[in-house]
Amino acid sequence: MMNTQLTLTSFIQRAEKYFPQKQIISRTLSGIHRFTYGQYVKRTKRLASALTSLGMEKGMKIGTFAWNHHRHLEAYFAVPCSGAVLHMINIRLSPEHLTYVINHAEDKILLIDEDLIPLIENIQDKLATVEKYIIMTDKQELPETSLSPVYSYEDLLQKSDENHPFDEHLDENAPAGMCYTSATTGNPKGVVYSHRGIYLHSMSIGLVDTLGISERDTCMPVVPMFHANAWGMPFAAVWFGANQVFPGPGMTPAIIAELITQEKVTFTAGVPTIWLGLLKELEKGDYDISSLRALICGGAAAPKSVIRAFENKYHVPFIHGYGMTETSPVATLSTLKSGMVDASKEEIIEVRAKQGLVVPGLDIKIVNENGEVPWDGKTMGELLIRGPWVADEYYKDDRSADAFKDGWLYTGDIAVMDMEGCIKIMDRTKDLIKSGGEWISSVDLENALMSHEAVFEAAVVAVPHEKWQERPVACVVLKDDYHGKVSKDELLEYLSRQFAKWWLPDDVLFMEEIPKTSVGKFLKRALRDQLKEQYSNN
Amino acid sequence: MMNTQLTLTSFIQRAEKYFPQKQIISRTLSGIHRFTYGQYVKRTKRLASALTSLGMEKGMKIGTFAWNHHRHLEAYFAVPCSGAVLHMINIRLSPEHLTYVINHAEDKILLIDEDLIPLIENIQDKLATVEKYIIMTDKQELPETSLSPVYSYEDLLQKSDENHPFDEHLDENAPAGMCYTSATTGNPKGVVYSHRGIYLHSMSIGLVDTLGISERDTCMPVVPMFHANAWGMPFAAVWFGANQVFPGPGMTPAIIAELITQEKVTFTAGVPTIWLGLLKELEKGDYDISSLRALICGGAAAPKSVIRAFENKYHVPFIHGYGMTETSPVATLSTLKSGMVDASKEEIIEVRAKQGLVVPGLDIKIVNENGEVPWDGKTMGELLIRGPWVADEYYKDDRSADAFKDGWLYTGDIAVMDMEGCIKIMDRTKDLIKSGGEWISSVDLENALMSHEAVFEAAVVAVPHEKWQERPVACVVLKDDYHGKVSKDELLEYLSRQFAKWWLPDDVLFMEEIPKTSVGKFLKRALRDQLKEQYSNN
Repeated sequence: MMNTQLTLTSFIQRAEKYFPQKQIISRTLSGIHRFTYGQYVKRTKRLASALTSLGMEKGMKIGTFAWNHHRHLEAYFAVPCSGAVLHMINIRLSPEHLTYVINHAEDKILLIDEDLIPLIENIQDKLATVEKYIIMTDKQELPETSLSPVYSYEDLLQKSDENHPFDEHLDENAPAGMCYTSATTGNPKGVVYSHRGIYLHSMSIGLVDTLGISERDTCMPVVPMFHANAWGMPFAAVWFGANQVFPGPGMTPAIIAELITQEKVTFTAGVPTIWLGLLKELEKGDYDISSLRALICGGAAAPKSVIRAFENKYHVPFIHGYGMTETSPVATLSTLKSGMVDASKEEIIEVRAKQGLVVPGLDIKIVNENGEVPWDGKTMGELLIRGPWVADEYYKDDRSADAFKDGWLYTGDIAVMDMEGCIKIMDRTKDLIKSGGEWISSVDLENALMSHEAVFEAAVVAVPHEKWQERPVACVVLKDDYHGKVSKDELLEYLSRQFAKWWLPDDVLFMEEIPKTSVGKFLKRALRDQLKEQYSNN
Repeated sequence: MMNTQLTLTSFIQRAEKYFPQKQIISRTLSGIHRFTYGQYVKRTKRLASALTSLGMEKGMKIGTFAWNHHRHLEAYFAVPCSGAVLHMINIRLSPEHLTYVINHAEDKILLIDEDLIPLIENIQDKLATVEKYIIMTDKQELPETSLSPVYSYEDLLQKSDENHPFDEHLDENAPAGMCYTSATTGNPKGVVYSHRGIYLHSMSIGLVDTLGISERDTCMPVVPMFHANAWGMPFAAVWFGANQVFPGPGMTPAIIAELITQEKVTFTAGVPTIWLGLLKELEKGDYDISSLRALICGGAAAPKSVIRAFENKYHVPFIHGYGMTETSPVATLSTLKSGMVDASKEEIIEVRAKQGLVVPGLDIKIVNENGEVPWDGKTMGELLIRGPWVADEYYKDDRSADAFKDGWLYTGDIAVMDMEGCIKIMDRTKDLIKSGGEWISSVDLENALMSHEAVFEAAVVAVPHEKWQERPVACVVLKDDYHGKVSKDELLEYLSRQFAKWWLPDDVLFMEEIPKTSVGKFLKRALRDQLKEQYSNN
């Protein structure tokens, strides 16, 4: 067989040749921006030309600091298809971590959204490697900024070559992109994506049995483009010629509902809080989401009530995905096997609530101290993953040895495997509650609590206990209408219908809000610290 | 990213783990054979164990000489997943060519269907490398044969290890299989498939935008397993856990119609003559083919009348595919772009009648003496293909240099490209009729003739001409009811409605049958030779 290298250059060339009329719709600060793939490819070539004239060369790291929009998509291909490496920087990092990741990656040029300039200005003095700043704005004039030297994205594009050639001779193992993932303690850890990894991952999410992204789709990644490549959707969508919708800066549930309705989005992906918010919004406004053929939920588990609402009320298949920055990210999906054809609605919800089957190409196992766990849906162990789009190290990081062992990625997630081979994530290794030698899943208790009509959000964490080592305590945020109307005992009674007595939380604390990480997950470490103090003071 | 090798071992391991209950249904000489993937994998391990004890080692060629059935599928994985190479021998080759391919590939062991034994006995004395013969039969006793040493497949399996391990450390570029393709002149040419090539091709045909093979399917390859891996379907179906139906020896249209009806086949693939035969059969019997979600037609172009019947009468999408043994084989498909959503039935037939869009991962161009042809649907040129599942040489064959140049496969097929980027195959380079410096497509004339209600088959070939160099002559087989009822002039008048006068055949010859190649294509070389003589004698 020909020694054809699997690179992103072939993706954009396919879009250019066969799908020049397909649409890219982007919500920007100044309204909805629309253009075709034909125009997109020309602009992407211009960007590659401009960056090259600014000194971009093979292997150089170019950072983006941006929301989801068409310019970000231009960088997605202009950089790797020139042999350079796109560092998609998480805009929600703390100033310290932001400084760390930019310096650690050794970014030479930063592409920055207009409204995010202050965040970079704030750390500018500490950036050791950045030589040039490019501002992405719709305006004619560059905004006032202390960043220097600074360039206007649109100015650069105007002066550059729309026939600039992409590199057609890249090595498939060459780096194409990188993202940093937050660590439990210490600095974020970098994951480098190769062309080959993204190519195979893109193919994998075009399979009928996985996300099935195709030319017929209008894809809207709600998940940020700086989170694990927006779960790989923009790459696959360009390759297959799908229409794309980018929700832009500061999106709200109303904006998402509106975009789905107006642009007839067929496929979208995001974290549970997004879908919770969307459900609320759908109750309020006059929206139509019937164009959606599926909705992907990842990052954390969604409560069954949310799944049930999308599946039964709106008839939108609600597919849980599991993955990590380290896995490109799509690793498992709660798609339905053909044996489910005659399943009842509740049986379907049951399957959807799991993280599902591993995608073709990857390999998983769940291990505890006794080896691989039985497929009983009960025995918990740590989830291990390997495959051609799974990282084998953190970029220049000593912590690699903890996660990558014997050819496997140790995910740090605790899971069970059911008889069908579907996994269910029970907890993070570090969030698992170890009570009297037995394991209690905080996630299971949380989901049960969040299925109660009065509960908006719930986090369950371990507090130290003299006799049992650890015991669970629930932190609950009630829905607006239920403040003061639901008691601790009522919630514990509700839980006791599903769980053994020793699983029930020792306490239920009502809160205004649960602290969250930059990616919208519960910040359990902070809760644990807070409660530890509280309970040791008691 | 991890250096995971893309090999077939991961396919069968996935089937074993996640789809042990899915079905493999196989029509054999003694009836319908059913078993599960669970049982299939155990038997495949047994076969690998048996072959290993017979001396199979890495890189060794093991030949199959067999119809489509479950044992052939066992060999499909037992051999490559042990690091050896599966040579799928075309059972329809002449004794000379058969001898050539087995000796040229240096097959060491042959797996032979019971009813095909005489074909091998016939050439046994000339086989230079074969050391062992294994007979695939349902019977307890081995049939009488002069082949020696000879083994019973089932005997071997019974004595072997159902836990025999597959090789998990294969190089993705290692050879996995090989097929020979017939040449215009001389011996067949060998194509070697690597694990990587089959892996990527399998992924590609699981995409929504291509064949979309998935776990939900029940796939029936009517195309023989010795023709370009049955177009890759068995490999993909095992990986994705689809049910499979194998039609076995000596299948007829009635058998195909019956299997689709009884086994609720969702997806099937074969050459036009198969579908023509199936249409006739459907008129006769009480069949139900509504389970089919699509039908793939390749090897040659089907007449529009056939496409129309499947699309409009039976509501089965009729997808033309184009490919070659050299391209693994799926290269282009007449799937519908999303812009066709509101197209009329006839517009859809028009698209279906072309060979369609290149699949993601491959790259094509059409060139003539002026370079790449315009996308006008008219200008003809030779089709070139490249990509990771396209061969880069013929196995140990000097003729490689003719077909593989500058990183492209020169297909020898003449095609046009329409404005959407869909190709239409107009002719084989060698079948094209060059009349007065202009090109006439024999295939276009044939399809037009075959759309006439009286015509069953038609082949158009060039005859030498003093003034115009070449002129077309049509060879026509009429349907049974029309013998003697249709004249040459009537058919020429019919053609003149669609074609310029200079395209019209100089003559129409009515025949009983059109000679065909071993793969069911018109044997135009024989026709040309015959007519050349006839016309030079006139």
